[in-house]
Amino acid sequence: MNQEWMRLDAAVVASGSAVGKKEHEGPLGCCFDLHDASDKFGKKTWEGAESEMQRMAFNIALSKAKMTDREVGALFAGDLLNQCVGSAYGLLGFDIPYFGLYGACSTCAEGLLLASLTVSYGACSLCGAVTSSHYCSAERQYRTPLEYGSQRPPTAQWTVTGSGAFLVGRSDAYPERVRIRAGMPGKAQEYGINDANNMGAAMAPAAADTLCRFLSATGATPKRYDLIVTGDLGFEGGSILCDLLRAKGIDITDRYADCGQLIYDRKGQDVHGGGSGCGCSAVVLSAYLLPRLQSGALGRILFLGTGAMMSPDSIKQGENIPAIAHLLELESPKLPKTERS
Amino acid sequence: MNQEWMRLDAAVVASGSAVGKKEHEGPLGCCFDLHDASDKFGKKTWEGAESEMQRMAFNIALSKAKMTDREVGALFAGDLLNQCVGSAYGLLGFDIPYFGLYGACSTCAEGLLLASLTVSYGACSLCGAVTSSHYCSAERQYRTPLEYGSQRPPTAQWTVTGSGAFLVGRSDAYPERVRIRAGMPGKAQEYGINDANNMGAAMAPAAADTLCRFLSATGATPKRYDLIVTGDLGFEGGSILCDLLRAKGIDITDRYADCGQLIYDRKGQDVHGGGSGCGCSAVVLSAYLLPRLQSGALGRILFLGTGAMMSPDSIKQGENIPAIAHLLELESPKLPKTERS
Repeated sequence: MNQEWMRLDAAVVASGSAVGKKEHEGPLGCCFDLHDASDKFGKKTWEGAESEMQRMAFNIALSKAKMTDREVGALFAGDLLNQCVGSAYGLLGFDIPYFGLYGACSTCAEGLLLASLTVSYGACSLCGAVTSSHYCSAERQYRTPLEYGSQRPPTAQWTVTGSGAFLVGRSDAYPERVRIRAGMPGKAQEYGINDANNMGAAMAPAAADTLCRFLSATGATPKRYDLIVTGDLGFEGGSILCDLLRAKGIDITDRYADCGQLIYDRKGQDVHGGGSGCGCSAVVLSAYLLPRLQSGALGRILFLGTGAMMSPDSIKQGENIPAIAHLLELESPKLPKTERS
Repeated sequence: MNQEWMRLDAAVVASGSAVGKKEHEGPLGCCFDLHDASDKFGKKTWEGAESEMQRMAFNIALSKAKMTDREVGALFAGDLLNQCVGSAYGLLGFDIPYFGLYGACSTCAEGLLLASLTVSYGACSLCGAVTSSHYCSAERQYRTPLEYGSQRPPTAQWTVTGSGAFLVGRSDAYPERVRIRAGMPGKAQEYGINDANNMGAAMAPAAADTLCRFLSATGATPKRYDLIVTGDLGFEGGSILCDLLRAKGIDITDRYADCGQLIYDRKGQDVHGGGSGCGCSAVVLSAYLLPRLQSGALGRILFLGTGAMMSPDSIKQGENIPAIAHLLELESPKLPKTERS
């Protein structure tokens, strides 16, 4: 019974993105709504900068929708910092009921899934989903302070400095906006990986599990989708995902992308395994994927948010890395009615 | 618009509780389903013990309901540990879609609210909500390792070693079980408190805000409820809450209780400000409040889960403590039909 997918009738009313210097210099740089070349966003601490990015990204989404916080029924938000303080402090100024989440780098998909569920079933007419990550706050919390200049192995991913915010309403109230048609929450998976510098490998089996369950439950094939995009397996994990699926007779290589691979220039920017962090899939979805769905350049996609749910302490205690992947099916409003589900 | 409460049609199908030595020695000691006098639950680390408590508590709930994990559509879980590893590792063995939460000590109410919403609106027929805290893992993460023997001020609360787990279904499918009739998610509040040893004072305004909004939105008075219970403001915060409400013309003193006040013997057990931690309100609800609602000893109560959403780093950086309170209305199945809402 719990293999079922959730039918959702939600739409992304508006979204906003704020990023740092490196993300602005990457191949998607011109797409983001706002950037700060100092990565500080006017704050004294990296943690304060991360909170400020969330505040700005959500304000941008509200502005695009011409709305105020009083119109939003609930916020779903979280981040990578201990006790999710990026979200707690960043969104404190908004007068909106608040649900704190922890889904590691899957938080964007988790928040959108819960926001979509809440509006689809009529508990609120409008919800927000916000998340962020910051390279400097994440490095010192998960690895070492930047000043140490520690080396990184080739599989290590680079935490994106960025925040993405989304406003989600009912699809019948916003027929001209990108629709969230279906969702499938992930089940935690753990396959013996305990190297925090190879999180793509830890997360790939979770993405494979959710995708296979969804295709099996709905009877769909990868051909139904113009793009199947994960966020964020990076180069290592993305390749493992395609291998895992091929072993099950599913080939997605001709329509596969990963937000951690898209956000940086692999040759020109030194990011090793690609991008990661809650902010990565959030800003790529907000600034790159949603506009292409809105314009009709993409008709229908699957978006899988992947997260590695270890802590620095659990790794030191010898535990393996549990991972999760939440899935959303997104559909362009430009898709001909005959092709809609 | 976002002042609205959520009508819920959920029921607590079953619940389980696991606690440590001190909790077992307290006034509610005989009510808990399971305890371990070593506080270690067979594990080598305090973090491992906390995860094991969650696994045990959820297994107890499944056993009471005579169900397996395959029948549960989604789990909502979180805890106080960095990156919520208590839940991520503790519930990894269950084959259930997983939503990670971070609501600090409000996690029990947050999880129950989202589980109730999910079943009420038909996205799943059965959901789980699980949370925990452990005195030893919390002390070394938030304050100092136990070996330091550091002193505590009188307002400091004692983190409960315990885990509570709940199975939530639709109320029409379980008419003989305690009903979750309404919910109101909290808004983050911050009133200038930055003393992590006085979290009751930081959280009391959040509880007052949610309670006032709920009473105002529903038109109910405190008299409608046999008990208005917070979890966990402790002695300091509970007294502040009653004062804040009295200033607004609302008197709840004759029907007010707090899980952090109930769980320990104030005179006999040296706990200063009372109990706290995600596990506190979860085990008191599971082992003490729900059975009294089930038997009809309590007819209708309001349960407010309160959380302080700072991190040790945010306190060191001079930030104040944001707090939140999520509310649930619980109703006894023994309440005469004429008195039901």
